[in-house]
Amino acid sequence: MRQVVVHKYGGTSVASPARIKRVCRRIASVARNHPVVVVVSAMGHTTDRLIELARKVSPAPPARELDALTANGETITAPLVAMCLQALGVPAISLTGLQAGVRTSGHHSKARIMGIETQRIKAELDAGRVCVVAGFQGFTESMEITTLGRGGSDTTAVALAAVLGARVCEIYTDVDGIYSADPRVVVRPRKIEYISYEEMLELAAVGARVMHPRAVEIGELYGVDVHVRSSFKKGTGTMIVAQVPMEDRNRVRGVAHESNVAKITVRGVPDKPGVAAALFEPLGAASISVDVIVQNVGVTGATDITFTVAEDELPQAVALVQRANREIGANEVLSSGGLAKLSIVGTGMLGTPGIAARMFKTLAEQKINIEMISTSEIRITCLVDRARAEDGVRALHTAFDLDQQ
Amino acid sequence: MRQVVVHKYGGTSVASPARIKRVCRRIASVARNHPVVVVVSAMGHTTDRLIELARKVSPAPPARELDALTANGETITAPLVAMCLQALGVPAISLTGLQAGVRTSGHHSKARIMGIETQRIKAELDAGRVCVVAGFQGFTESMEITTLGRGGSDTTAVALAAVLGARVCEIYTDVDGIYSADPRVVVRPRKIEYISYEEMLELAAVGARVMHPRAVEIGELYGVDVHVRSSFKKGTGTMIVAQVPMEDRNRVRGVAHESNVAKITVRGVPDKPGVAAALFEPLGAASISVDVIVQNVGVTGATDITFTVAEDELPQAVALVQRANREIGANEVLSSGGLAKLSIVGTGMLGTPGIAARMFKTLAEQKINIEMISTSEIRITCLVDRARAEDGVRALHTAFDLDQQ
Repeated sequence: MRQVVVHKYGGTSVASPARIKRVCRRIASVARNHPVVVVVSAMGHTTDRLIELARKVSPAPPARELDALTANGETITAPLVAMCLQALGVPAISLTGLQAGVRTSGHHSKARIMGIETQRIKAELDAGRVCVVAGFQGFTESMEITTLGRGGSDTTAVALAAVLGARVCEIYTDVDGIYSADPRVVVRPRKIEYISYEEMLELAAVGARVMHPRAVEIGELYGVDVHVRSSFKKGTGTMIVAQVPMEDRNRVRGVAHESNVAKITVRGVPDKPGVAAALFEPLGAASISVDVIVQNVGVTGATDITFTVAEDELPQAVALVQRANREIGANEVLSSGGLAKLSIVGTGMLGTPGIAARMFKTLAEQKINIEMISTSEIRITCLVDRARAEDGVRALHTAFDLDQQ
Repeated sequence: MRQVVVHKYGGTSVASPARIKRVCRRIASVARNHPVVVVVSAMGHTTDRLIELARKVSPAPPARELDALTANGETITAPLVAMCLQALGVPAISLTGLQAGVRTSGHHSKARIMGIETQRIKAELDAGRVCVVAGFQGFTESMEITTLGRGGSDTTAVALAAVLGARVCEIYTDVDGIYSADPRVVVRPRKIEYISYEEMLELAAVGARVMHPRAVEIGELYGVDVHVRSSFKKGTGTMIVAQVPMEDRNRVRGVAHESNVAKITVRGVPDKPGVAAALFEPLGAASISVDVIVQNVGVTGATDITFTVAEDELPQAVALVQRANREIGANEVLSSGGLAKLSIVGTGMLGTPGIAARMFKTLAEQKINIEMISTSEIRITCLVDRARAEDGVRALHTAFDLDQQ
């Protein structure tokens, strides 16, 4: 079989009949030369509208029924795209997650793809049909409908590209690529031509919302390059690949920021095994995502542990930590909101002298105080006052030569 | 297992979150004492809106994709009803046509139910859950999604009642029962308490649009009584049963009328085998439904054949008949529109002297000319001028003592 091409179109790309027609003309031109699999999201704000309906009949809609409800967004788009392609003379067929063989775990609203049974898709491609697959959804062994969480259509697309042996998965979206910083904050952001899976994951983790992280992970695992590009503009976007070109290594690739950050400090934590677990397990059980964690190892047998949470989850997190605190016998729990994370990301950065120093100096020149620092192999993150975060992004973007010439 | 109760709620009954809540309160009170299966239609005008979207991307949407699209109407309602029931403290689960095991033929947009695999539904009922089934849809052996045609949710409900051994299937709708004539035409229509399957089928065939005829057929075949009632008003509606009470037999039960009728007469048809087939087969192939057929057997070796079609299909029908005419060598093809059918329906009517005569006399007194007559065991139909049809309905309704006292 010739090389399969996988396209994914997001909600804005298929938001109206006119946009569906435009998308289909693009698919038609590719389908002349390749077997094509198209993964589609729900049209425009369909998912939000379905969730709104759910909230009107139930104060806390159970995840199983919410999945059964929201999966309709994508199963509405898929037949519309398939019939539009047929109207353009392109043989096409729509497939639900189940018909496309997307088997998942049973974790409703955040299911994981366990495997894809490709017989049906392969038979349809062999018969010369474009397969239009409803993204975001799958099914379990007991025929339950599951969803993969927001942005899950990206994951469907990259997983299909992996099992069908496609070399590239094209993600068509409403932006024309990954930028060196948020274009709403920075005046001259630079479009990144190539970015590594790890850099993309770090950028996603610190606030760049373009690609679903699980999709990037699958791309990395199966060696599928992911091309993020605009469904409205011509030209290439950003390629997410295993290896970025030589000249892009050992330098800062992007500056990300995330607001809605609060921090909690537990002081005087006894320095003995099991204490961190006692602190964080209740947060995990309550589905509160803990982000940056810093522990200052003490010399007196007690330490301070500081970590960040989303600010809107702060009250619940503080309550849980205070309860855990009574158990582990720490001194006190401090918390503060109004913070933001600033991060610089780039492969090989940690091995390049002077990058961390330049980040701290740049923030100091802006009189932006650093409340906390955390680093990974390819990222340095500083916690700062939220009111100064955007100034910080702009200063770092310039300091690391990222401004578009 | 205790007696299963099957409820079906039509589109107007679940048109909004507020109406879904009302429906769920009713189900909750029944679910205390019975295992309950609820069959739901699409909310309000959802199906029409989906079809409208389809027409915007395709001039002639293929039936397979149109089924995949419109099936979403019901699979949106079902989880909303299930989560609303759960919010009321009633254990409930939504099931798609596939999850409910509704196997059908592969005739997209007008599939027939071949059987229902009840394991899942029975397991859920045994676990004490209300099963909320998406009506109107099923699946084929190759996992294709099919729909049963407009009104198909009635068929889903009665078929489920049949396989689950329910004695009654309750059809909740926006009218409170079957009436002796169209309440928009007759001043004092009478609500019919009991009506036989056959009478209901004849009424449906001549214009009463309340119940889907296939649902009535399944009810008759499996001995399931069907209770047509209002989801907005209290009180009983109309029971569709095998045997109506003694005092309701041998009398006229209802007067129905259907406008949009045209007739075609083929004159001088050679009186030899195969001629009628040559005439009607092309109409069937073009999906043109032929209604009343009357043939006057000739003495000269030629006959006249007259039949009716829907007036909006008249031009196409005439063209096909004229082509067939050249083949069979009849004299001429005449056609006229602007007609309506008036029918009286009642079991045992044909064996009751004077009923036909009274119908013709009543119309004569109104100076309504009868263009054509056709009868069945339980129905007499007259073709009349459309402009006088409603006068005819009113006169017949009074003449056969149907006016509500």
